[in-house]
Amino acid sequence: MSFDLDAIVQPTLLLKEAVCRANIRRMADKARAKKIGLFPHFKTHQSRSIGAWCAAEGMQGIAVSSLSMAEYFAADYKDITLALPLNLRAFDRMNALAHRTGLTLLLSKEDAARALVKQIKAPVRVFIELDAGYHRTGIAPEQHGEIASIIQILSACPFTSFRGFYIHPGNSYGLDKLAAKQAIHEQALRAIADMKRIFHREGMDYRLGDTPNCTLMEDFGELTSIGPGNYVFYDAMMARYGNCSWSEIAVCLAAPILEAYPSRQELIVHGGAVHLSKDIMEEADGAKHYGWVSMLNSEGWSEPLQGAYVKKLSQEHGIIHLPKPYFDALVPGGLLGILPVHSCLTASCMKGYLSDARRRPDHAEA
Amino acid sequence: MSFDLDAIVQPTLLLKEAVCRANIRRMADKARAKKIGLFPHFKTHQSRSIGAWCAAEGMQGIAVSSLSMAEYFAADYKDITLALPLNLRAFDRMNALAHRTGLTLLLSKEDAARALVKQIKAPVRVFIELDAGYHRTGIAPEQHGEIASIIQILSACPFTSFRGFYIHPGNSYGLDKLAAKQAIHEQALRAIADMKRIFHREGMDYRLGDTPNCTLMEDFGELTSIGPGNYVFYDAMMARYGNCSWSEIAVCLAAPILEAYPSRQELIVHGGAVHLSKDIMEEADGAKHYGWVSMLNSEGWSEPLQGAYVKKLSQEHGIIHLPKPYFDALVPGGLLGILPVHSCLTASCMKGYLSDARRRPDHAEA
Repeated sequence: MSFDLDAIVQPTLLLKEAVCRANIRRMADKARAKKIGLFPHFKTHQSRSIGAWCAAEGMQGIAVSSLSMAEYFAADYKDITLALPLNLRAFDRMNALAHRTGLTLLLSKEDAARALVKQIKAPVRVFIELDAGYHRTGIAPEQHGEIASIIQILSACPFTSFRGFYIHPGNSYGLDKLAAKQAIHEQALRAIADMKRIFHREGMDYRLGDTPNCTLMEDFGELTSIGPGNYVFYDAMMARYGNCSWSEIAVCLAAPILEAYPSRQELIVHGGAVHLSKDIMEEADGAKHYGWVSMLNSEGWSEPLQGAYVKKLSQEHGIIHLPKPYFDALVPGGLLGILPVHSCLTASCMKGYLSDARRRPDHAEA
Repeated sequence: MSFDLDAIVQPTLLLKEAVCRANIRRMADKARAKKIGLFPHFKTHQSRSIGAWCAAEGMQGIAVSSLSMAEYFAADYKDITLALPLNLRAFDRMNALAHRTGLTLLLSKEDAARALVKQIKAPVRVFIELDAGYHRTGIAPEQHGEIASIIQILSACPFTSFRGFYIHPGNSYGLDKLAAKQAIHEQALRAIADMKRIFHREGMDYRLGDTPNCTLMEDFGELTSIGPGNYVFYDAMMARYGNCSWSEIAVCLAAPILEAYPSRQELIVHGGAVHLSKDIMEEADGAKHYGWVSMLNSEGWSEPLQGAYVKKLSQEHGIIHLPKPYFDALVPGGLLGILPVHSCLTASCMKGYLSDARRRPDHAEA
């Protein structure tokens, strides 16, 4: 396994196939050991090739975050959860899609359930999304009356069947301390246990989505499935918050070094906001940046260079700050590696990968 | 001119053709009045269609920010400045490109000039990039010795001819006060005047790049050309800092409204970081957000709704905060408009436009 670095002229997203496959295998092994289903969220990689690696290690279906992605994967997978609140403008496409694959939709409101049963014309399953404290989307688990009402609306329609409950504690992503993540996880498990106690029917699915706790926790309570996404690549944010080691990060942006500014100890690279996106990371010491920096070699990339970071991103320029010894070792005409803050957004920007196995994994948007 | 809003199912970048053409015309008129060349930076729109509107209003050539963009536009334009520091890994593609179009490169280092004259095999022109205080790229105008040396290196090669000086005072973008922008502009003009006094030869080109000062200033000193980009669309950032009015913003993301959360006065829309990118704007009162919000209608969009803003962006979700009357007027199944913080990045994410003239302007990456 090696990268053909000499062939790299433009910003290029490197993918270590063995690391990615090991990440995929670890999660698949864990799901098997816990006897729960694994439904990887394909929004992270958006790739049929990488999807096939997930399938090879074992999974029961997938999740996606847009209709377009669901359409892209519909030929290959027959249990696809569209993990975005129901789009009431999209019934024509959802109906068409539900004829091609087993489609599961997400909602958390009576109004949405009523609109769905009125306009869906093909069999779909439906998750009710719970909000256990993230406050992005979902219904509060205390709202038993509204939850019961949604289930009733769905059960009265020949096309909709109630699949179960979906919870994504996205508030676990920015936390350092294991105890804080544990607290969020336990809150989610309690919400799920409540739902099971009150609403359980044979075959119901109880799914958790966040990568930090799917990775770190051992107790999955009453969950019957998990749907993490980011774990296939991980990223600098995940490593900084203790959810993976840096060596488990499977993607790195190779950026051509354009200029060196010794007085500022800064390199200018071709690698900007259109390649990395612009998620900001705050280090434990308060420093903020747009990515970790590493040295590249044919086997991949080094550990993050201590004290080096992506200081600023323009549309195509990246400004990299480096301590003196690293600054001296990296010269215009060379390449450096940027470990992305948020690999899902970087992969979406880059729309493709250069694998060290010399295969070209595809990307939905490519 | 009207938008077919009923046909919108997914996040869609709306483009008001008349506003965009008026922005283009105003800058073209100004350049003509000042008797200086106009070389619009096509990184903003990346579109042959919108490029043709620029050409129709009058321009002398274009700028781009990547080799791929230069290759995309090479068939149509014969004076293309690749406004990114020289990429020493890309000589094969630059040589091929220089056979297809009139290519101008950018550099600010003797080493880069030496590498260029060694490896370029087709005629190119070269700008020396000046840094008058932005501290991203460019040589300090005081470094007369190194500048003279670069000019000499270029003049000794049959393929390279020295075009002149290029300055991009990117530090004008985040400033409120006209006097502060004026100070940056005057510093740039002084740097240019110094270069002219010392290095002038017949036909040399002195170019300024920033949209705020190309828009606001009347004195262009010794400049012979300007190369702004963002002015074709402008955006919320430009309006917030007084570089345009909100009605001069030519693009707006139409986002399907998915869910309403009355207790938080928040709407969830399909419209996230993969659609808008993630530039943050800080308002005069210190509030930070990811975009302004407007009502959509078939003619386009309303003025920004007072007190409404994009609070948070996930990969595909946007969380919109709205004051009560607006919150009540916008419902799931409808659309709302997001005026992007940085239109260049949004256009790059979206890779296409829906025009109110019912034509489909292309995009380089589509």
